[in-house]
Amino acid sequence: MDEKKTRGVFAATLTPMKTDLSIDHEALARHCRWLLKNGCDGIVLFGTTGEANSLTVAERKEIIDMLLEGNPFAERLIVGTGCCAVGDTVDLTRHAQRYPVAGVLTLPPFYYKNVSDDGLFAAFDAVVQGVGAADLRIYLYHFPKMSGVPFSLNLIERFLKSYGNTFAGVKDSSGDFENMKAMIKAFPGFRVFAGTEAYLLDILRIGGAGCISATTNATGSLASEIFRRWESDDMSEAQARLTSVRKAFEAFPFIPGLKTMMARWTENDAWLNMRPPFLPLTREGSADLQERLNALHFRPNL
Amino acid sequence: MDEKKTRGVFAATLTPMKTDLSIDHEALARHCRWLLKNGCDGIVLFGTTGEANSLTVAERKEIIDMLLEGNPFAERLIVGTGCCAVGDTVDLTRHAQRYPVAGVLTLPPFYYKNVSDDGLFAAFDAVVQGVGAADLRIYLYHFPKMSGVPFSLNLIERFLKSYGNTFAGVKDSSGDFENMKAMIKAFPGFRVFAGTEAYLLDILRIGGAGCISATTNATGSLASEIFRRWESDDMSEAQARLTSVRKAFEAFPFIPGLKTMMARWTENDAWLNMRPPFLPLTREGSADLQERLNALHFRPNL
Repeated sequence: MDEKKTRGVFAATLTPMKTDLSIDHEALARHCRWLLKNGCDGIVLFGTTGEANSLTVAERKEIIDMLLEGNPFAERLIVGTGCCAVGDTVDLTRHAQRYPVAGVLTLPPFYYKNVSDDGLFAAFDAVVQGVGAADLRIYLYHFPKMSGVPFSLNLIERFLKSYGNTFAGVKDSSGDFENMKAMIKAFPGFRVFAGTEAYLLDILRIGGAGCISATTNATGSLASEIFRRWESDDMSEAQARLTSVRKAFEAFPFIPGLKTMMARWTENDAWLNMRPPFLPLTREGSADLQERLNALHFRPNL
Repeated sequence: MDEKKTRGVFAATLTPMKTDLSIDHEALARHCRWLLKNGCDGIVLFGTTGEANSLTVAERKEIIDMLLEGNPFAERLIVGTGCCAVGDTVDLTRHAQRYPVAGVLTLPPFYYKNVSDDGLFAAFDAVVQGVGAADLRIYLYHFPKMSGVPFSLNLIERFLKSYGNTFAGVKDSSGDFENMKAMIKAFPGFRVFAGTEAYLLDILRIGGAGCISATTNATGSLASEIFRRWESDDMSEAQARLTSVRKAFEAFPFIPGLKTMMARWTENDAWLNMRPPFLPLTREGSADLQERLNALHFRPNL
């Protein structure tokens, strides 16, 4: 694992499924290869957008094996492993650690709300001890609106004091740029990824690591151009365009929106397969999103 | 399964654990027997209070087997089976259905928020089809503050229209008595349990089924007296006392509060074993709760 590589534009990959909603392993590997070819520096497997929380632990372990055995790009993958039950988080994280992955992206135990920092520390302590790997690199998944369980700055400080770079960074999906700023300022070396490419240029300018995003499943090449050139060129126009595309997707739930557009772009309806509680966009929604993206002349090179 | 019995006072049982936080199956069976002896009409296994969401699916299946094999009170149990992944919910529900349980208490898939009623219907449709048992009785677990995913009246109506009494009732932990009222009024025969015994008398008076509560782990005998006598006697004083005890517990997180008090009452510190993100009450918190309960002269007959 070359840690220097863990920065830039990451896509939280979609999970292609068959008609019976079982995993289409081949299509997933194909999509991941395309994401990297389309400009992404890395991939998060099992993020929110990957329908990770609609997959059983056994399914996730099988996907890890199918995708990572003999995979030359394992080190460009961060694997989502955070479950409600710490026992499941340990199990999945150990499984991911069989491969030379860049790290794991870990939600806090997210069913119980209003829990104390002491309790969250104990949960992550149990994960670190349970995994027991010196090369474990945890990226905290801070997504208060979805998980209902935020990571406070005090808690992150405590993780870093106790475990150093085992706590390698964070994906901040709060949408709160002030929080990203505060983490970058407080914790040198801690990699702060914005949860949306709308903040890509902004976060790079203040020392952030990049972005990990749902919509970079489609916008990877636009985002990657900004990441490659932001230090030498004025990328504000490119960022404005990228942000507009992101905003178009934000008008719809991400998983249905992205899968629906993938189906349109590839003319392959298998992309419409998704697990409840998600359903494909309605015909109207789908046409609306297509129109918004057409108006921006946006279409990825699939 | 005698469905008429599924009413009254249910406790969402605590889950006793050993020092290494593995399940203490014997202590759990003992506690369940005591709950029934202490006045509870039934038990919810794997509710929020049971730390269900800190247990793996495999652990829950083992607990079901250990507790229910040859168990004469299986029909007084409702088993919590709602997971984030529908696949897990089906797996657990099928497992519970091996025994003559009264029903299952099922959270919606609770990671993804702001999902549509269509999506939630599809999720429960997949559960009903996946379990495929004519005697399946689902109690919906409506707990918006914890799950972040409420059940609307429209959705419940759709469940009932499509599947009749497979959708047998609801545990309403919203704290919103108007919502309980509305369900009782709209859906005759649908069993509405209040999520707190503070509403026990109120909900019985309007045709509700009873309560399913965390704190009836301690208050079962008080609550059961109200349930047995409310039609013939004035139970408003008993209800006021019961509500006061409930309120004392509400000043603390339920799992730490209840386990800490069980440890004090039984003089058995094994009750202090709980999984992160929960930790025992501090010494001060513990003394404070004890004082509040002492002031009410409350102590269960353990």
